[in-house]
Amino acid sequence: MSPERFSRISQLLDQRQHDLTLCLESVHKNHNLNALVRTADAVGIHEVHAVWYDQQFRMSRGAAVGTEKWVNVIHHDGLAPALEHFRAQGQQIVVTHLSPQAVDFRSIDYTKPTAIVVGQERRGVTPEMIAAAEHHIMVPMVGMAESLNVSVAAAVILYEAQRQRAAAGCYQRPSLPESERQRVLFEGGHP
Amino acid sequence: MSPERFSRISQLLDQRQHDLTLCLESVHKNHNLNALVRTADAVGIHEVHAVWYDQQFRMSRGAAVGTEKWVNVIHHDGLAPALEHFRAQGQQIVVTHLSPQAVDFRSIDYTKPTAIVVGQERRGVTPEMIAAAEHHIMVPMVGMAESLNVSVAAAVILYEAQRQRAAAGCYQRPSLPESERQRVLFEGGHP
Ligand SMILES: C[S@@+](CC[C@H](N)C(=O)[O-])C[C@H]1O[C@@H](n2cnc3c(N)ncnc32)[C@H](O)[C@@H]1O
Ligand SMILES: C[S@@+](CC[C@H](N)C(=O)[O-])C[C@H]1O[C@@H](n2cnc3c(N)ncnc32)[C@H](O)[C@@H]1O
Repeated sequence: MSPERFSRISQLLDQRQHDLTLCLESVHKNHNLNALVRTADAVGIHEVHAVWYDQQFRMSRGAAVGTEKWVNVIHHDGLAPALEHFRAQGQQIVVTHLSPQAVDFRSIDYTKPTAIVVGQERRGVTPEMIAAAEHHIMVPMVGMAESLNVSVAAAVILYEAQRQRAAAGCYQRPSLPESERQRVLFEGGHP
Repeated sequence: MSPERFSRISQLLDQRQHDLTLCLESVHKNHNLNALVRTADAVGIHEVHAVWYDQQFRMSRGAAVGTEKWVNVIHHDGLAPALEHFRAQGQQIVVTHLSPQAVDFRSIDYTKPTAIVVGQERRGVTPEMIAAAEHHIMVPMVGMAESLNVSVAAAVILYEAQRQRAAAGCYQRPSLPESERQRVLFEGGHP
């Protein structure tokens, strides 16, 4: 690996936000999966979780072209294992939900360990996921459209998290476990 | 038209931001056009401009299903008429450009009359558009992906504009010309 590449990957790893994650509940269009993983990568998310209820829709390997090597996509069969994972990591579960009970997405403290959940293109998030979440948020809208595209909604929320974390100095504090750091550096050197 | 529908449309029109616009330079994938127009609608943009250099890619009428009635999409053959329009409106031209000269998108004052320009999925914005713009901005990225999806980048910027404008009370000050208001109320009552 060239010194330039080593230093680029090293810098990337220093800025990864180990305690921030994005959870996709049955999101299944390839252009959305691709956009979502790219955005996650761009704000320093190292691990994206995908929850599936239907094997048919499992993310096809090629979906997130270009970045999947740099963002780990973890697949779960159903909700329980995903929730278990977030809880084991001490992450607050923040679910996007277009309801009157939802609060403005900017009112959440994203510097805490957080899993942000977005839902399926047509049906949105499941009632079970809503019940499991600590916070229900929405991105305000003043027009006639009833919802935003899922990649768009996720990006607006993730960049609010980025803003808060940048202000709190989180990108200056490496948080990735050393073993994961070594694994990525090793694999990144062997394309 | 029912009183509920009248009041919903009326409220929408009160919140429209007459002096904020989004300009799409040769963006041509339907899922992006759809997401972009939905996002524009959601932050109160009343007019989206599409610049075309190639007739083949002109936005298909069905692209922005559901909201096109509520957001005017104005098509331009080439750059000159679009620039002329923005200048006649006294709008600053803010172009997204992934270059070292670009400033952080949050450093711009979007409460001023503004046209935000995003570029084509593959090639980005044209050198001519870059030369015409007052400001070059970018959304910061800390990962390995080289760019964001165009709908994602636009949404992140538009919601920064929404944040600034909400803080400045712009959504409390109706700005749409009365003639346009009447037109939309009339057409909105006849679906
Ligand atoms: C197209 S929406 C699904 C709409 C579905 N009919 C519903 O009512 O939930 C797909 C996903 O995008 C996200 N989303 C869309 N608009 C949003 C908004 N304004 N605020 C927060 N999330 C949003 C949510 O994650 C949602 O589950
Ligand atoms: C996929 S990008 C085009 C990439 C192209 N190779 C380039 O270098 O411009 C398509 C459009 O998305 C927008 N975009 C993508 N990432 C961006 C970022 N980080 N900041 C600002 N705009 C971005 C820009 O409008 C860009 O023209």
